[in-house]
Amino acid sequence: MEDDRAGVPRGSALLTDLYQLTMMNGYLEHGEEETRAAFDLFFRRAVFGGRYLVVAGLEDAVRFLQELVFTGDEIEYLRSLELFGDEFLEYLSGFRFTGDLHAMPEGTPVFPGEPVLRIEAPLLEGQLVETALLNIVGYQTLIATKASRVVRAADGDPVIDFGLRRAHGTNGAFLATRAAFIGGVQGTSNVLAGRRLGIPVRGTMAHSWMLSFDSELEAFRAYADVYPEGTILLLDTYDTLRSGLPNALTVAGEMREQGHRLLGVRLDSGELTALSLEVRERLDRSGLEDALVFASGDMDEHRIAALKAQGACIDAWGVGTRLITAHGDPGHSGVYKLAAVERDGAWTSKHKVSDEEGKATLPGRKQVWRRFGDDGLAESDLIALHDEPVEHGEADALLVPVLEGGELLGPLPTLEAAQVRARAELDQFASGVLRLDEPGAYPVEVSAGIEALRSRE
Amino acid sequence: MEDDRAGVPRGSALLTDLYQLTMMNGYLEHGEEETRAAFDLFFRRAVFGGRYLVVAGLEDAVRFLQELVFTGDEIEYLRSLELFGDEFLEYLSGFRFTGDLHAMPEGTPVFPGEPVLRIEAPLLEGQLVETALLNIVGYQTLIATKASRVVRAADGDPVIDFGLRRAHGTNGAFLATRAAFIGGVQGTSNVLAGRRLGIPVRGTMAHSWMLSFDSELEAFRAYADVYPEGTILLLDTYDTLRSGLPNALTVAGEMREQGHRLLGVRLDSGELTALSLEVRERLDRSGLEDALVFASGDMDEHRIAALKAQGACIDAWGVGTRLITAHGDPGHSGVYKLAAVERDGAWTSKHKVSDEEGKATLPGRKQVWRRFGDDGLAESDLIALHDEPVEHGEADALLVPVLEGGELLGPLPTLEAAQVRARAELDQFASGVLRLDEPGAYPVEVSAGIEALRSRE
Repeated sequence: MEDDRAGVPRGSALLTDLYQLTMMNGYLEHGEEETRAAFDLFFRRAVFGGRYLVVAGLEDAVRFLQELVFTGDEIEYLRSLELFGDEFLEYLSGFRFTGDLHAMPEGTPVFPGEPVLRIEAPLLEGQLVETALLNIVGYQTLIATKASRVVRAADGDPVIDFGLRRAHGTNGAFLATRAAFIGGVQGTSNVLAGRRLGIPVRGTMAHSWMLSFDSELEAFRAYADVYPEGTILLLDTYDTLRSGLPNALTVAGEMREQGHRLLGVRLDSGELTALSLEVRERLDRSGLEDALVFASGDMDEHRIAALKAQGACIDAWGVGTRLITAHGDPGHSGVYKLAAVERDGAWTSKHKVSDEEGKATLPGRKQVWRRFGDDGLAESDLIALHDEPVEHGEADALLVPVLEGGELLGPLPTLEAAQVRARAELDQFASGVLRLDEPGAYPVEVSAGIEALRSRE
Repeated sequence: MEDDRAGVPRGSALLTDLYQLTMMNGYLEHGEEETRAAFDLFFRRAVFGGRYLVVAGLEDAVRFLQELVFTGDEIEYLRSLELFGDEFLEYLSGFRFTGDLHAMPEGTPVFPGEPVLRIEAPLLEGQLVETALLNIVGYQTLIATKASRVVRAADGDPVIDFGLRRAHGTNGAFLATRAAFIGGVQGTSNVLAGRRLGIPVRGTMAHSWMLSFDSELEAFRAYADVYPEGTILLLDTYDTLRSGLPNALTVAGEMREQGHRLLGVRLDSGELTALSLEVRERLDRSGLEDALVFASGDMDEHRIAALKAQGACIDAWGVGTRLITAHGDPGHSGVYKLAAVERDGAWTSKHKVSDEEGKATLPGRKQVWRRFGDDGLAESDLIALHDEPVEHGEADALLVPVLEGGELLGPLPTLEAAQVRARAELDQFASGVLRLDEPGAYPVEVSAGIEALRSRE
């Protein structure tokens, strides 16, 4: 009865665009069943005004590939469309993904144009999975990237995901919370994500709690009574400084008399810089130096950076709508492109030429190398052919084998490991490259081998 | 094994914010188990620069409420958090939603501030479901609204949803496609949505099809061979006018000799106005007056309106990323607010006052009336108390009973009916109210009864 995590129903091979199926049918009718193909999944552009992206979604992508089957009901639906021949429907009834997958581990920083996944599989299989792979990896990469930016702006302060109510679907929220954790978020309000993914769950109180009591003081007292060690009081239901704060100080004093302490207060509206300074000062004056000032409400990397620049006294950040909806750039720029075709044992490279800037693609089966300088900092990336010799002192191959013949080669890194990787690998870059706006350049080069294939056109 | 439609796992009461559960626990510890409450779900502001929203998501919201249970595993997880008392965990083990729901039918046009759902339930139950209801109804309303705008811009031309690959999660895509259909989209590329929802599925061909063949002409011929009655040729793989179009005309001629006809061509990049005029003229000159010109690529209501204003000759529109990600306003503005509390048989109205513009709420249990003029056009809406007499010649009550004591009162309208409703009810407004940008005003009034409750504060 358990759903699967990704919100991808089992037997969900129909999570694809119709044209993938009509093209597959066409390939089959033209005798391409044995043809193999290599596809690259990459991002055309960076997002949110930054330079880098943080890869996420691989675990769900792998699960999708491994669970992919067409059920009898699904095949009957396809038959009813009168678009497909019997041979093709028969082929689908035995469908399993049998291809190879190379991928960058989750948490890897990546730049536009670099393949983050490389699929080598029968042409029909590689075609089918385009749509779902783009959806899964594109979305989670978008959110991990946004989260990484928010966390960088918070500069060491905890960031908590509060986005569930504003996400694009309940499962969208679940996947976004997963990706946000990879990007560095410390906790979430999403209880399901807490249970299924082990992400710490956090929360304060809502205005409805406040309103359900006859007075603010009564509401504060009631909560502190139930949670003497975990109370964060919401100050803005009536008036943050004239009502919320004095009532909070009263309750904090009462808690202290009973041997407890107020965990903190939450600011959710108003001019947060001025409010936080005043609140901090009056908390301190009351001997509540330990109490946290928690801020929420339309937060994103830009607002947090601005509040910090203004000197706001805020210790922790609740980030909701703008994180979970990838505010500013809600559509990822992922694409999935044919790079080579193998017929009768011989690979032929493929690429799209285009007048339109950024729409051309690179031919050949690829590897991405990250090259490091003597100071240990990444100095450039190189997109090369997978078997091309690359001369450089220190370089990492970013694409690693994940599936071979449809089988998983080993356990994938844990979610915690992906978060650690993202933090550690971002630290390998000069800080200018990571700047939120107008970031410094980072060279991504294309190898001589690929250029040679490209110029052969 | 079937997942449920909404991507909301069964036993998914954990799809909530942690604070809902800590507040519920607090209510219980304070003896509020018998207290009932009324909550309104409404939108704070319109989106995308327009005036109206189109309600969607009710069916999934009702399903969520009716399936809501805490499994034993979930309760053990909650116990492990050390935040909840035994009495509360025991309460959860028998939890069912037993409240009443009034709602606007899917497809209803609505304005900011108007409750689209009213929940009356035990306080604890009403609190729990806030997060999921906002997620489900907020997201689908956002997408139905965006779709309605795109469809209005297309002015009668078919609009097809191509967004699956760029949506926020695979289930996000599924729900968005559902909502887009309510908003007026005619078809989708999403095969799963086709099967599960009965939405017509549509598709053309991809660049990968083109590249997998040795030449464009060969690729066109191969597709036309498989789909002699359904071929839409993608023109821009090499060069739309110099290569794609001449090759398409060649293949169309060959098809005609065999008694078939080319269904159309697709433009996916370049200057679409100029390209479409040239393509149309050359198609017509070749006797292909019937062939459709299909356009895709970064489409939204503004781009479609601009292309139409420029005189582009386009017959059908594929709309992907910008529809499915609610481009321009990806975060819905839905909120869920306590409006009244019943203790010992007596209701007390509740509302939040606020300095911050637009953050105050309206007290009391409500109904929304749409009032019509003699010309049949809607002339104003009135937010009133549910039992307040409303004097007006012609007026519709927009909130209708859906659940009573947790039980569904009757079948919900079909998806097709919701699409028909959206179209018909939008036609009840003066066209200025529906304008994409700088729309005309539409009065939404607050009743004397509500004002009296508000001023009592």
